[in-house]
Amino acid sequence: MAREIERKFLVIGDDWRGLAPGKDYRQGYLSTVAERTVRVRVAGERAFLTVKGISVGASRAEFEYGIPVADADEMLDGLCERPIIEKTRYRIPHEGFVWEVDEFAGANAGLIVAEIELASEDQQFPHPSWIGEEVTGDPRYFNANLIAHPFSAWNDG
Amino acid sequence: MAREIERKFLVIGDDWRGLAPGKDYRQGYLSTVAERTVRVRVAGERAFLTVKGISVGASRAEFEYGIPVADADEMLDGLCERPIIEKTRYRIPHEGFVWEVDEFAGANAGLIVAEIELASEDQQFPHPSWIGEEVTGDPRYFNANLIAHPFSAWNDG
Repeated sequence: MAREIERKFLVIGDDWRGLAPGKDYRQGYLSTVAERTVRVRVAGERAFLTVKGISVGASRAEFEYGIPVADADEMLDGLCERPIIEKTRYRIPHEGFVWEVDEFAGANAGLIVAEIELASEDQQFPHPSWIGEEVTGDPRYFNANLIAHPFSAWNDG
Repeated sequence: MAREIERKFLVIGDDWRGLAPGKDYRQGYLSTVAERTVRVRVAGERAFLTVKGISVGASRAEFEYGIPVADADEMLDGLCERPIIEKTRYRIPHEGFVWEVDEFAGANAGLIVAEIELASEDQQFPHPSWIGEEVTGDPRYFNANLIAHPFSAWNDG
């Protein structure tokens, strides 16, 4: 078991583009209950099954296991909640830290967020120019919520 | 991915006792949604994470992965839906077939069921004297339902 400490921000502008190659992700959920999410993810040539507990501040319990890509594809196509989340991830180094920028496609097209993993909740880090508003802990941006309420529908009503 | 074909029966009487040693199981669920159950199980010295799709007749999709017992214990104690299912499983050979008899404890004490795995849905097999009513496909006996509606409460109301 690992305990993740991550902070999440909206991305502004296009200055981050071209700083790193992208990798395509397909992921879906077997459980989107906040207390126990279960994610199936295909990341390039690898696949994972990941169990996460509820967030307490910026940290939460996480258990991740490598699984065959064929299993993951079958679960994504046949078992997971709809829609599947599709995105391209760019790992962008910046002054000793690595930002993971996720540019969503499909039902969440238009949304771009950046996450940084930290050693402690109060660790300081430099903000690149393309980092905007912090959304750590905002449930609208939880991946699980992007299935129930995709970004493309946020301006409705 | 394996596709399970199983039939499930109630157990009657005590003639099955003493025919095989028992092994203690602790299991819980990260998802009890019928379309995609996710089970954490500790069986003796081993542990597994198992994803199952919806039942179509007696068969359904199943994906199972071995995981560290320490991970499973942590998920059972901290993440899974309550109550955890506790049972003792006896694998009893009978005329070339193996019956898995589950004697439940805790909130499901009093319930004893037997399952047999078959090569096809119409395969014939001998019934031991202690096999009672068939309950294959009866949702009351799904393990996931034994959490939401434990056997000890079935006679209420």
